[in-house]
Amino acid sequence: MTYEPHEDYQHLLTAWPAVQAYQALATKHGIADIFQDNGGKLLQVLLLMGLKIVPGREGNDAVDASGREWELKSANIELVKGFSTHHHMNPVIIAKYRQVPWLFAIYRHISLQAVYIMEPADLEFYFKKWEDKWHADGNKDINNPKIPVTYVTEHGRLVYETPPELPMGAR
Amino acid sequence: MTYEPHEDYQHLLTAWPAVQAYQALATKHGIADIFQDNGGKLLQVLLLMGLKIVPGREGNDAVDASGREWELKSANIELVKGFSTHHHMNPVIIAKYRQVPWLFAIYRHISLQAVYIMEPADLEFYFKKWEDKWHADGNKDINNPKIPVTYVTEHGRLVYETPPELPMGAR
Repeated sequence: MTYEPHEDYQHLLTAWPAVQAYQALATKHGIADIFQDNGGKLLQVLLLMGLKIVPGREGNDAVDASGREWELKSANIELVKGFSTHHHMNPVIIAKYRQVPWLFAIYRHISLQAVYIMEPADLEFYFKKWEDKWHADGNKDINNPKIPVTYVTEHGRLVYETPPELPMGAR
Repeated sequence: MTYEPHEDYQHLLTAWPAVQAYQALATKHGIADIFQDNGGKLLQVLLLMGLKIVPGREGNDAVDASGREWELKSANIELVKGFSTHHHMNPVIIAKYRQVPWLFAIYRHISLQAVYIMEPADLEFYFKKWEDKWHADGNKDINNPKIPVTYVTEHGRLVYETPPELPMGAR
């Protein structure tokens, strides 16, 4: 194979030092690879909100400066209409969910657009609904029930940016 | 929650325009999100080698300027000692593997370090091994058998950069 770099390879090289600086920042804050598992998105909300990730934890749990744990959720509103939750939702997970405040990060593609906060009481509608479904289904875990973006923008407290203009069809 | 951005948030904002330019390049070349599924890594090898991704295909298949399909594999040698292959390896996959040239991209963290090319004949040792194992196990698919990085660096043709210094323990 004789290969010829695409003419855009020069543009990549131009952007690269800043991309590496971005990874260095991420590494400093516990994100080993910005190009996997939305690492480069997570960094934005962590630094903006002054949160730290909890090492060794599954998911995106974070702690604030006072040591309080937060449940962190994110969604790219160009692609989805709801926040993912957990792939094996059951009463144990829900009990944990009732103990912590929630931070919802809304992205448009890779850019953080808005951050909303909800207390567990604000999400009780969904907790109860999942719990009832779990029991009704014979104690069967629910695969990733969603929390609609519109529920969050309507009931949550906006702490960053303006409410996003949702794409057509997301309302 | 009153929140205070981390002092590093300024550094993030400084790097951000270049990160967005990097995503714009990626979007132009068919990678919707650099922060997922190693998108930002894939872009490096595509542009360097003048390859295009095959839209709608599973995995990282690519075509060169002449329309020839390539099997694309990548590994971060800071974390792993082998290239992942396929989560359901079986004779159908192996038959496909025997038809195309292979391009192995070696990364150190997020940066492309080296690219090696191997013809299917160079990989026949593994194709045969997997095939034999599949039959011996009663036609059971093999879960992601690896191709060692050292096998590639020793038997492949280096087409970019110098051979990486493998981290201690990877040999």
